Amino acid sequence: MAKNEKLVEQITSMDEDFAQWYTDIVKKAGLIEYTSVKGCMVIRPYGYAIWENMQRILDNRFKELGHENVCMPMFIPESLLNKEKDHVRGFAPEVAWVTHGGNEKLEERLCVRPTSETLFCEHYANIVHSYRDLPKLYNQWVSVVRWEKTTRPFLRSREFLWQEGHTIHATAEEAVAETEQMLNVYADFCEQALAMPVIKGKKTESDKFAGAVSTYAIEALMHDGKALQAGTSHYFGDGFAKAFGITYTDQNNQIRIPHQTSWGVTTRLIGAIIMTHGDNNGLVLPPAVAPIQVVIVPVAQHKEGVLEKARELYETLKSAGIRVKLDDSEQSPGWKYSEYEMKGVPLRIEIGPRDIEEGHCVAVERPTRNKTFIQLSELTEKVRERLQAVHDDMYKKALENQQRRTYSCRSIDEINKALSENGDGFVKAMWCGDEECEDKVKAETGAGSRCIPLEQEEIDGKCVCCGKPAKCMVIWGKAY
Amino acid sequence: MAKNEKLVEQITSMDEDFAQWYTDIVKKAGLIEYTSVKGCMVIRPYGYAIWENMQRILDNRFKELGHENVCMPMFIPESLLNKEKDHVRGFAPEVAWVTHGGNEKLEERLCVRPTSETLFCEHYANIVHSYRDLPKLYNQWVSVVRWEKTTRPFLRSREFLWQEGHTIHATAEEAVAETEQMLNVYADFCEQALAMPVIKGKKTESDKFAGAVSTYAIEALMHDGKALQAGTSHYFGDGFAKAFGITYTDQNNQIRIPHQTSWGVTTRLIGAIIMTHGDNNGLVLPPAVAPIQVVIVPVAQHKEGVLEKARELYETLKSAGIRVKLDDSEQSPGWKYSEYEMKGVPLRIEIGPRDIEEGHCVAVERPTRNKTFIQLSELTEKVRERLQAVHDDMYKKALENQQRRTYSCRSIDEINKALSENGDGFVKAMWCGDEECEDKVKAETGAGSRCIPLEQEEIDGKCVCCGKPAKCMVIWGKAY
Repeated sequence: MAKNEKLVEQITSMDEDFAQWYTDIVKKAGLIEYTSVKGCMVIRPYGYAIWENMQRILDNRFKELGHENVCMPMFIPESLLNKEKDHVRGFAPEVAWVTHGGNEKLEERLCVRPTSETLFCEHYANIVHSYRDLPKLYNQWVSVVRWEKTTRPFLRSREFLWQEGHTIHATAEEAVAETEQMLNVYADFCEQALAMPVIKGKKTESDKFAGAVSTYAIEALMHDGKALQAGTSHYFGDGFAKAFGITYTDQNNQIRIPHQTSWGVTTRLIGAIIMTHGDNNGLVLPPAVAPIQVVIVPVAQHKEGVLEKARELYETLKSAGIRVKLDDSEQSPGWKYSEYEMKGVPLRIEIGPRDIEEGHCVAVERPTRNKTFIQLSELTEKVRERLQAVHDDMYKKALENQQRRTYSCRSIDEINKALSENGDGFVKAMWCGDEECEDKVKAETGAGSRCIPLEQEEIDGKCVCCGKPAKCMVIWGKAY
Repeated sequence: MAKNEKLVEQITSMDEDFAQWYTDIVKKAGLIEYTSVKGCMVIRPYGYAIWENMQRILDNRFKELGHENVCMPMFIPESLLNKEKDHVRGFAPEVAWVTHGGNEKLEERLCVRPTSETLFCEHYANIVHSYRDLPKLYNQWVSVVRWEKTTRPFLRSREFLWQEGHTIHATAEEAVAETEQMLNVYADFCEQALAMPVIKGKKTESDKFAGAVSTYAIEALMHDGKALQAGTSHYFGDGFAKAFGITYTDQNNQIRIPHQTSWGVTTRLIGAIIMTHGDNNGLVLPPAVAPIQVVIVPVAQHKEGVLEKARELYETLKSAGIRVKLDDSEQSPGWKYSEYEMKGVPLRIEIGPRDIEEGHCVAVERPTRNKTFIQLSELTEKVRERLQAVHDDMYKKALENQQRRTYSCRSIDEINKALSENGDGFVKAMWCGDEECEDKVKAETGAGSRCIPLEQEEIDGKCVCCGKPAKCMVIWGKAY
């Protein structure tokens, strides 16, 4: 080991202890740090940069589709939260209450927003009057607070970052189309930016958002076979509008009630990336959101010309808009290889005296360690190709894992057998639509309903639980 | 008036009632809307887009200088806030307290962050151990809460958006250099992006940030002669580090105490833009942060070819990266002229049948209404020139206002005379350094100390108040 060489931090193997493996990665890859604020965390620069990259991609997409960003207050007066009865029932038990401002007791308690439907509705009631004011396609990037009992970094924390889109439309058809459009935006984002396949579906009645007519979700499958809800899009009908007295005058001067939606994704997606792509060497980041896409490691960097050439490659890639880092620190190349594998950097470029002589460099992909020689004259183009290859490999591997762990079952016994023999995963099984059966499947197998996929299959004619005629196929699974 | 023509909303004249003029602009230009959350507001799309443009420019600059973004929790446990005695004295009287999570009373109250020094310090104590860990140059974009009694949109609200930079360094020299560097970044930003001249200076002891060794600020002069603090940069020395037990091991294996800074600007800058540049026709926005830099208004748009040509101009400017809007609504051109003047759009392009025949369009600048014919073949280049001209005019006008309203005074009588004869403004006058004199000047003239400018002048040898030998020149003024 070189003088002053730091140790590459070891992480627990995921086969040994998946939960500890996850915790090791979030800490040791420098994504988060704990604080004295229970259930809240510091998102460190490397973790926050992943979120910034996600934000940029999503925000551009939202704006292309005509959405505008706004910023609502972080507080909601108790009386405002109480206006829509299903909504308040869903959220009141888990909000943080502000009761004092300075030394004075407030006349009315304020909750810290768990979500902002009520504030958007109050605002829409103020600014929507005519059909000319519709639609309003608003979004905000903020943090929200839900007083969870058990927390885990990114997956479930008392405060988390998200975006919440809130739209209001003249007709139900338009609002439904918006709800579906945003579900598709999320699914495309997960697949194209995060290399993470997802299943699009509708939540069952018992699993809907508080106040929604219908909730759509995308569900992803983690390494350990557990399901993770990666984004939701809600259609509200006119329930909120009625509760908040939002109306508009149509072209014929008739008073109408508008229809609404909301949709969101959160920093939970960072947890999803870790558990979809990570391995026993650490984090594996999709190139589209990796803070460092390429790390350049000089080999025998004390030899003449090596650092100069490494810097030249750095400048070439940087000016091409690639997020690149040159590590010319005194650590050994071997240490650096491990360090940037741990940090999930998609591509490593090695360059030493012999490579320079031969006019090439070596590109090593994460996680496959697939090696390519790149002619220096084709650097940018070939690096782009390799990054695309990393993305494609990651997506393929994740899809294979999802498919391998998806079981079609016709009875509760088959579900239990599949899960115990092959490990947790997605279970495809038919359902009669009865909440009692939904609960019973969960009680007897541990797998709850994740969603009713938009792409249906006919596994069987009968409900997996009661045997009565089935209404639809449901994806079941244990969930984060 | 055309059929369906809306009324352009009227605003109060600033000479009649400056405060009402301000309120009219923030509402009628669509920057904010009030809410049922006292002292908090909705920042509407047009207002938020100004903030996004500011964020992008500043964030790029911060990153070029090596800063990284992070995200701290929004809550601070009471015991953590109490750790640095000056700091807690300064902030505890004006924080919002969370006392309950769901239905349970918390063991320890949490305040909603009024600023995040305490959280950054706790984090630095966890992650800074060796000289190799230094410096840490962190920043975050969040909202903070201060329980103000009297509020005004953007200028003083209970919740506001800001960025807070927090850095930690091995030596005092480095930390002081960072404090000064960030003050310069803010001053350059105000001048180059907001067309707003500022005075850089140091706050007096009585006006320092709670817990700082020294506070630097930039001060701007509004239309009505009142001063507005537009940004601050604080040097903390090692006071916070000692209170939070942050130490590091230096190259010689000695335990050392690091030195810290913090610095921030807020959505207050939007208020500063309004009161520096606005006029009786509405908002005037600096091109660098205007959500719409150019609006295209077709004239006689029902005539053949007009809308097509207008769309062509729109596409040309858009693809050149200029933020452009084409208003092809049914409102009359006159209505549109007033509307986009109200919204402060820097440049209006008019294009009608005769212009098309002659191969040009008309560019009208805000606020001068200066008119130029632009050959369509030179559109992008000339539009860029006109936007630069708008910026230059705005800066020049603001600087002239500041200079005209800056008075050099040698006695309290002179101050009162200058202010009553010429209206409020910056007063340059000498000071002995005694807090009693500082208070007396304010009590007898209404003008408090704004800052001790970095660029000093020798107005007199004696304190403007007590006549004893002067230590420095101070800028005095009434403040927002």
